[in-house]
Amino acid sequence: MKPQAIKFIVLIAAVNILFSPPYSHAQLPSWNDSLSKRALVAFVERVTNFESPDFVPPKERIAVFDNDGALWSEQPMYVQLAFALDRVKVLAEQNPELREKQPFKAALEGDLKTLAESGERGLMELIMATHAGMTTEEFAVIVSDWLATATHPKYQRPYTECVYQPMLELLAYLRENDFKTFIVSGGGVEFMRPWVEEVYGIPPEQIVGSSIKVKYEVRDGQSVLIRLPEIDLIDDKAGKPVGIHKYIGRRPIMAFGNSDGDYEMLEYVTSGLGPRFGMIIHHTDAERESAYDRQSHIGRLDKALDDAEKYGWVIVDMKNDWNRIFPEAAR
Amino acid sequence: MKPQAIKFIVLIAAVNILFSPPYSHAQLPSWNDSLSKRALVAFVERVTNFESPDFVPPKERIAVFDNDGALWSEQPMYVQLAFALDRVKVLAEQNPELREKQPFKAALEGDLKTLAESGERGLMELIMATHAGMTTEEFAVIVSDWLATATHPKYQRPYTECVYQPMLELLAYLRENDFKTFIVSGGGVEFMRPWVEEVYGIPPEQIVGSSIKVKYEVRDGQSVLIRLPEIDLIDDKAGKPVGIHKYIGRRPIMAFGNSDGDYEMLEYVTSGLGPRFGMIIHHTDAERESAYDRQSHIGRLDKALDDAEKYGWVIVDMKNDWNRIFPEAAR
Repeated sequence: MKPQAIKFIVLIAAVNILFSPPYSHAQLPSWNDSLSKRALVAFVERVTNFESPDFVPPKERIAVFDNDGALWSEQPMYVQLAFALDRVKVLAEQNPELREKQPFKAALEGDLKTLAESGERGLMELIMATHAGMTTEEFAVIVSDWLATATHPKYQRPYTECVYQPMLELLAYLRENDFKTFIVSGGGVEFMRPWVEEVYGIPPEQIVGSSIKVKYEVRDGQSVLIRLPEIDLIDDKAGKPVGIHKYIGRRPIMAFGNSDGDYEMLEYVTSGLGPRFGMIIHHTDAERESAYDRQSHIGRLDKALDDAEKYGWVIVDMKNDWNRIFPEAAR
Repeated sequence: MKPQAIKFIVLIAAVNILFSPPYSHAQLPSWNDSLSKRALVAFVERVTNFESPDFVPPKERIAVFDNDGALWSEQPMYVQLAFALDRVKVLAEQNPELREKQPFKAALEGDLKTLAESGERGLMELIMATHAGMTTEEFAVIVSDWLATATHPKYQRPYTECVYQPMLELLAYLRENDFKTFIVSGGGVEFMRPWVEEVYGIPPEQIVGSSIKVKYEVRDGQSVLIRLPEIDLIDDKAGKPVGIHKYIGRRPIMAFGNSDGDYEMLEYVTSGLGPRFGMIIHHTDAERESAYDRQSHIGRLDKALDDAEKYGWVIVDMKNDWNRIFPEAAR
């Protein structure tokens, strides 16, 4: 870009700022004018207004978001599990003996009941076989390639388009108000990093997630990191405040979740000093998405629903508070 | 601030940008016009020039800095070790039996030889006794309180003023060019977070360092993280690329170090595809700071010095390339 072009853009930007109203709510068009939206906007206005006693300087405006069920759909199964199941198929082509070995046999046959019965150990075996052994850069390519072709079984669109439009608007709204937005997910951090920047506008260095260990090596003259079949961090439940502390190093002032896996994160964030905001996305829309809470195996929301009032966590009723769920299809 | 004031500031900023030259080197006044400075500036201009074939988009402009010996003095001992030794004195007042127990006895007597002979196990015992057992927030206060009163034995000024003025200018210069600056240090991440933002302008979430494990707890109705006496990550040598991958999640394009502890970080960063820059701060100034390299126990620079030419790492000769070492004293 030529200097003249840059100067022109700067001038236009300055003129825009000069003539824009001080606050604009036009950023959240997919949110109905509900109590949850009003609480959200009121909080953001309160902490960004320099003259408010609750003003928070921009560097402390940290907002953390769960991913599965909070930013994108997690039903009928976590997207990362769908990835692992598809990945077993590829591996079985290379190693046919996997076809007779559990939990791979169950995975190949789509027998989720037997797979679940293999317990944590079986699931871990499945995850390690599909997620470890390659370099970090190779794994990123595997994830990107899969996402480019896989489609959601119910919505028949790429998983990266099964993200919630109201939450995309919320992320943008917070960033416009000088918030730094982070993901804090029980999902694998390396499963998210390849696509999250493009889809949510959140860079790789602002993603906290579960992880396996890696090892540095110079292999064939290339400096690489090898993914090892060994758990490093389970960023779920009480692991979420731990992950937040490790990666972010200060207590966020806003937290967004949707399940009991987010309980400790919400508790940690909203019990700090000063203005705090916690929000729970409640899946109430069987028609446009899914309706589930206390009885669900995936994304169970029970204890956090009971205690929301006590902590002042705001509940989003997806069916009534959101006038659309997913963005326009890109293709 | 009133809207009118904000508008006025925006207008002034726009006018400044409109009439400023496209590139300005006035930001690095403490750097002499040496080959190292020229290589640095040439690289930054190359990757930020939209018309250059080596242009790098802002989001990929990640620069990583070692801390001890690269941003602040590490002689005659790591600042964190000085902190631990002082901390043992406080603990010994509360637990007098420590006075007769090694390695604490050696630490209290300033007997660094015996302390070193206690080996990694002894040092670890010392670090755990002084760094674990409290909440993360309590530890941050302990560090801040210590830094507020401790002074460097040679320079007789607070440790936070024993930082390198040319590096402060470099950090600011890179940020003005839309780089995101990170610390990647063998030192403890929680020993850095309380002061690094004020001193280097680097926020807590952009600090990678060695760490111990923490555990989430609700204690007396407070949500806290307790520091456990258990190593989580040693962010040194081959641990640095691991730390970079874990926390940043993409390969930086610039790396700054000063010792063999930075070898793998420099190798990892400069062996990526596209334009890459590695720099080694060589401590050559016995008069204004310290002169040490191949024989030093602290900050040994040997293998990285041998291989610098092979990798194209630029060497800064502190004595000749920097016209000042430390900033003006604040008090």
